[in-house]
Amino acid sequence: MSTPIYNRVALIGLGLIAGSMAWAMKRGGVAGEIVGYARSEETRDTVRKLGFCDRVEDSAAAACEGADLVVLAVPVGAMGGVAQEIAPVLADGCTVTDVGSVKRDVIDHVAPHLPDNVHFVPAHPLAGTEHSGPNAGFAELFDNKWTIIVPVPGADRDAVARLTSFWQALGANTDEMDPEHHDLVLAVTSHTPHLIAYTMVGVADDLGRVTDSEVIKYSAAGFRDFTRIAASDPTMWRDVFLTNKDATLEILGRFTEELFALQRAIRTGDGDHLFDYFTRTRAIRRGIIEAGQDTDAPDFGRAQKK
Amino acid sequence: MSTPIYNRVALIGLGLIAGSMAWAMKRGGVAGEIVGYARSEETRDTVRKLGFCDRVEDSAAAACEGADLVVLAVPVGAMGGVAQEIAPVLADGCTVTDVGSVKRDVIDHVAPHLPDNVHFVPAHPLAGTEHSGPNAGFAELFDNKWTIIVPVPGADRDAVARLTSFWQALGANTDEMDPEHHDLVLAVTSHTPHLIAYTMVGVADDLGRVTDSEVIKYSAAGFRDFTRIAASDPTMWRDVFLTNKDATLEILGRFTEELFALQRAIRTGDGDHLFDYFTRTRAIRRGIIEAGQDTDAPDFGRAQKK
Ligand SMILES: NC(=O)c1ccc[n+]([C@@H]2O[C@H](COP(=O)([O-])OP(=O)(O)OC[C@H]3O[C@@H](n4cnc5c(N)ncnc54)[C@H](OP(=O)(O)O)[C@@H]3O)[C@@H](O)[C@H]2O)c1
Ligand SMILES: NC(=O)c1ccc[n+]([C@@H]2O[C@H](COP(=O)([O-])OP(=O)(O)OC[C@H]3O[C@@H](n4cnc5c(N)ncnc54)[C@H](OP(=O)(O)O)[C@@H]3O)[C@@H](O)[C@H]2O)c1
Repeated sequence: MSTPIYNRVALIGLGLIAGSMAWAMKRGGVAGEIVGYARSEETRDTVRKLGFCDRVEDSAAAACEGADLVVLAVPVGAMGGVAQEIAPVLADGCTVTDVGSVKRDVIDHVAPHLPDNVHFVPAHPLAGTEHSGPNAGFAELFDNKWTIIVPVPGADRDAVARLTSFWQALGANTDEMDPEHHDLVLAVTSHTPHLIAYTMVGVADDLGRVTDSEVIKYSAAGFRDFTRIAASDPTMWRDVFLTNKDATLEILGRFTEELFALQRAIRTGDGDHLFDYFTRTRAIRRGIIEAGQDTDAPDFGRAQKK
Repeated sequence: MSTPIYNRVALIGLGLIAGSMAWAMKRGGVAGEIVGYARSEETRDTVRKLGFCDRVEDSAAAACEGADLVVLAVPVGAMGGVAQEIAPVLADGCTVTDVGSVKRDVIDHVAPHLPDNVHFVPAHPLAGTEHSGPNAGFAELFDNKWTIIVPVPGADRDAVARLTSFWQALGANTDEMDPEHHDLVLAVTSHTPHLIAYTMVGVADDLGRVTDSEVIKYSAAGFRDFTRIAASDPTMWRDVFLTNKDATLEILGRFTEELFALQRAIRTGDGDHLFDYFTRTRAIRRGIIEAGQDTDAPDFGRAQKK
């Protein structure tokens, strides 16, 4: 077992992300002690049984006492309130980080509450599944995925470096970005795709002439990948869209513009426009496979693992 | 080995679908002999090496001679031309079927060429992957998936029943539908989702302020599922949209309507609207898992199989 990177890590919020972090910390011997807190007694009891925290406290403040790393792992819209609650008990020199999917808004709502003697280093692990809650976590979630570190101006470089090696010890690759660029990149690679998937599934659900049971039976031809994305946690995603409004609306504007061009090509029978567009998009897929960010198994290997 | 359902099956077009059918026929002893033809010499030579056909002929007509089942497995827009070419040599009483993703248009372009002494029974296997060509096929593609049989008015019921048991012997579940309903169901479950995925990948590719290499690196948070869909064969999909125009445009209209409502909710900060919409769409996902049409493994089990 390697030397722990932090002596005591406090996880505030105990869902998919916090649970996966805890399992990965245990796997790698990354933390001396893991302390947890979640809002509901039900979640706290579940985590006591699951055992991914060494100790579960009944208040956020109690969980943070004496921690040298505090991780805010609640929905983006709840980050500010939690920061305010824990601020008085934070240990001198500790690092506070978060895992929120949006960064500008989290920084604006968390930073003002934190005392000057703690280091705030926001971060975002680009890894997730459609499941949520304390039972959903697993140690491998971050392996070979990217975690983006988003240091605030004037951040302490040692604190940033320590959090960076922490994420690497959890299996992730790391990169740094400023909050505005992070929010735009995520609007493209995650937020807008989720909104579109939710919309498509909503349309299918709503259609009188095609029943839900038909949609379900015949989903293998493309639709079911959308349903996985659109099964993600509603609270998390509501908060993402409310807090990354500008970038999401900008990308949505581009999306509808291009969709209308393709729609016109369908209407006018312009096969060349469609063919060229559909050819261009293949290169990105190849890049993703080559970068090791997806499997090339046909249909993700589903056919083999019924 | 069970008794073959057809003595000689001719496959016209030797890509993903025909290849998978051949491997599944061999697995189940479903055909006495499998004869193949593809347009290009390269594909024919590849198939001779792969060995999923017992015989590969250098013309479609030669491949169809004496066959009691002829399968048209070329892009939808090429079906009519192939039907015209093979019509003169079709054996008395043989069945002609196709696997095209659109049915009304294929029926309109194929049926007029066929002589009265053959049975035309259109069908569509709802199974596919992002790969195409003769190397992409595998025996399990249709297992536990649906194949929709779309009999034309006045179809010979024995011919329909025989083709139905053929698809079941390839591993599929079968259903019957009329062509109009088929094309609408597929516009919802497959065609519009594909168009949307292509569009989203196109937008990402086109964005000056986020580079392609950023999109590729950070694709794990939702985007990469779209890229898989948008890596599908451009010729196939061009033909699908050109030939299932009305249903696709109708579903696209509904889609943009709902998307605009969500966009407005984001703009005005209407969290309840977003939350309710995102909650509703989860039920369909559960239905798909329960119906055995997808795996519930987090992230399709990708995390486990790097
Ligand atoms: N899921 C992903 O794909 C993903 C990926 C990267 C980053 N993130 C980010 O990670 C964070 C956590 O996501 P997750 O997927 O782990 O969520 P999750 O599984 O739903 O867990 C959320 C946790 O936050 C708590 N919580 C919810 N609302 C709260 C509130 N208003 N006040 C205080 N605590 C609250 C919940 O407590 P109870 O259990 O007691 O209700 C739960 O412990 C979010 O900021 C999200 O944006 C998610
Ligand atoms: N892929 C799917 O997900 C899926 C699912 C269900 C149904 N389908 C339908 O199945 C059919 C075949 O699809 P696939 O995925 O098997 O395609 P594929 O792997 O691309 O193979 C297509 C085959 O058709 C031949 N072909 C292409 N254009 C032709 C033309 N203009 N004239 C004559 N032959 C031509 C090709 O010949 P060369 O190799 O010589 O070029 C190749 O052998 C399509 O109608 C499609 O709509 C596809």
